Amino acid sequence: MKILITAFEPFGGEKVNPALEAMKLLPDKIGEAQILKLELPTVFKKSIEKVWQHIDEYEPDIVISLGQAGGRACISIERVAINIDDTTMADNEGNMPVDQPIFKDGENAYFSNLPIKNMVEDIKKAGIPANISNTAGTYVCNHVMYGVLYKIHKEKLDIKAGFIHVPFIPEQVVNKPERASMSLENIVKAVEIACRVLVPK
Amino acid sequence: MKILITAFEPFGGEKVNPALEAMKLLPDKIGEAQILKLELPTVFKKSIEKVWQHIDEYEPDIVISLGQAGGRACISIERVAINIDDTTMADNEGNMPVDQPIFKDGENAYFSNLPIKNMVEDIKKAGIPANISNTAGTYVCNHVMYGVLYKIHKEKLDIKAGFIHVPFIPEQVVNKPERASMSLENIVKAVEIACRVLVPK
Amino acid sequence: MKILITAFEPFGGEKVNPALEAMKLLPDKIGEAQILKLELPTVFKKSIEKVWQHIDEYEPDIVISLGQAGGRACISIERVAINIDDTTMADNEGNMPVDQPIFKDGENAYFSNLPIKNMVEDIKKAGIPANISNTAGTYVCNHVMYGVLYKIHKEKLDIKAGFIHVPFIPEQVVNKPERASMSLENIVKAVEIACRVLVPK
Amino acid sequence: MKILITAFEPFGGEKVNPALEAMKLLPDKIGEAQILKLELPTVFKKSIEKVWQHIDEYEPDIVISLGQAGGRACISIERVAINIDDTTMADNEGNMPVDQPIFKDGENAYFSNLPIKNMVEDIKKAGIPANISNTAGTYVCNHVMYGVLYKIHKEKLDIKAGFIHVPFIPEQVVNKPERASMSLENIVKAVEIACRVLVPK
Repeated sequence: MKILITAFEPFGGEKVNPALEAMKLLPDKIGEAQILKLELPTVFKKSIEKVWQHIDEYEPDIVISLGQAGGRACISIERVAINIDDTTMADNEGNMPVDQPIFKDGENAYFSNLPIKNMVEDIKKAGIPANISNTAGTYVCNHVMYGVLYKIHKEKLDIKAGFIHVPFIPEQVVNKPERASMSLENIVKAVEIACRVLVPK
Repeated sequence: MKILITAFEPFGGEKVNPALEAMKLLPDKIGEAQILKLELPTVFKKSIEKVWQHIDEYEPDIVISLGQAGGRACISIERVAINIDDTTMADNEGNMPVDQPIFKDGENAYFSNLPIKNMVEDIKKAGIPANISNTAGTYVCNHVMYGVLYKIHKEKLDIKAGFIHVPFIPEQVVNKPERASMSLENIVKAVEIACRVLVPK
Repeated sequence: MKILITAFEPFGGEKVNPALEAMKLLPDKIGEAQILKLELPTVFKKSIEKVWQHIDEYEPDIVISLGQAGGRACISIERVAINIDDTTMADNEGNMPVDQPIFKDGENAYFSNLPIKNMVEDIKKAGIPANISNTAGTYVCNHVMYGVLYKIHKEKLDIKAGFIHVPFIPEQVVNKPERASMSLENIVKAVEIACRVLVPK
Repeated sequence: MKILITAFEPFGGEKVNPALEAMKLLPDKIGEAQILKLELPTVFKKSIEKVWQHIDEYEPDIVISLGQAGGRACISIERVAINIDDTTMADNEGNMPVDQPIFKDGENAYFSNLPIKNMVEDIKKAGIPANISNTAGTYVCNHVMYGVLYKIHKEKLDIKAGFIHVPFIPEQVVNKPERASMSLENIVKAVEIACRVLVPK
């Protein structure tokens, strides 16, 4: 079994991306599953192209993309990706699409086909706050989640895929005393637990 | 050098008190300083009596009281304690004082005489969010902070004292996805750093 | 031109529903448009049935549904409704669907076909905070938004439709000092402005 | 009976100060009480000098100072002012005092001698969220509150005085969709109710 994990480079003026840091700290094996790690540019289109290439190359059984959701206090497992790019914050190459469909022949939205409720349950059992989120936004995170699910549907691939948003880590909010954060250790643990839900025992 | 750390038993329906858990995990020595630990009842008056007894017995150079500030996202070092008990949430023995002065012959407020700015600076340097708080509330936390500073002023003791409020730990908010929390590891680290500011190098 | 406005009865233990109160205060005409008002039960399925009946009967050009989003601080114009009912809070008849598609033959999501960006712009120009929201949740609000857009798509109706979430009004949060609210006057004004965007000048 | 109301000019980059706007809209009489209005510079020291002059000149029975507390969601009646100026945000003349006592011969703190609990109760009865706040901060708001109470204590004046913090008004947060606000109408109403508590019936 192969699980492809993706994470973005830092964006929005941040020096680190907690999702990327977490990905680096994941083990190479979780149970029987091999963990493949892929860093993505925080760039519309290029991010999807890169993850598609690696899906073709690695042939993973599962794709879990990770992203930073600054301001959220808990791990949030995304339920759905919508067919739109819309931002007022430029991506890392200066693109700033407004109300653009990601794929003209795509569905309005794709639901994650990961066992999102079980993931939330198991993460919470480990003492880490988590919930289901009903929006991955309209920036590059939603873009990649949509792009992966679009490919799976169009090519009828037998792949489960979805997205996990993670909070800031404490280092990012030392000067923002009201912003929530989560330790990198707990983020790593949560992602590992989410993977473990998918691995046969 | 002796540092007396106090922390409260759980209250307000919580099963744990992160401040108490943090205190238990502190080392017995920080640099040259001996760390003395004292659990206090979350009860008006009794909490002050107990900490006073131990100040007399231990003759500490420093007293740092710890408390839970559920909802805050960062370590907050309290600046000031005010001469009032006022609550609508009963303490652990059912007391619910309303607008009562803590000591009729006390000053309206006492400022912490700890180096609170340095403490915040050093905690932040370690990557842990922290700030100065200007209110310790009007519940048992403020009560104990006031009680200790009152004794120091009345008896002209050569003791530095103050209060550190700590966030919920993740276990406490697994079902409250919007509430901020901080890992117990970081809370312990922050309190240790705060102590270290006071210890001669 | 006919604009059908819908709003829900109170739910979730609240005595009022600010969206319903706002609807009552809307004028009967906005420019050339006739304003038709419809109260919906906060009940899965029945709410959709009722709004469908009235769409057939009134033949409106526009359907704007209003709902309460307790905790949000601004008017939020919803972008998209997703094909899922999922709640842990019973509706007003005790239904508590979990992960149920609203219509098995529906698309995963429907985008509002209202000019949502213009609505936000004009409401903000009037000094009232507003934004686009990317999730209407998975409770009865999303349910009705989805149901109306589903009918429009299935029957190829020439109707524009969407959903506006409104904050609590101050009366609802007198004992919740940290919860945001908005005056009923501003809510009414915002909905009126949103309608006005749609009315030829 | 004379009630002196003070409010600050805008500060911190804001174009309006909701407290100032509210003061302007207060009636000139509330019951038997004459309402005197005084705009203060958002400047350390000068603000106190100006309010002192007018206390001497007007000989009011009551002084209520108003200030903006951006981010708070409800009217907050301050309980206590502390003897410290401490800011990292310059006042309107560029002063940025750090850990300075306001008056070296002042008490550590002065409690408001207004009937703050009754004020909160009556404002809430009118459907407007309100609470007691235990900190007026360490900026010019606390400074003026402290300055007025200091004068009253030093000169043994028969004056009741205190401070009311008010939220942003909606205009100030049109581009900050997550910040709470309160309509100017409700702010005015709340201040008027607070005054009315003090006026003999």
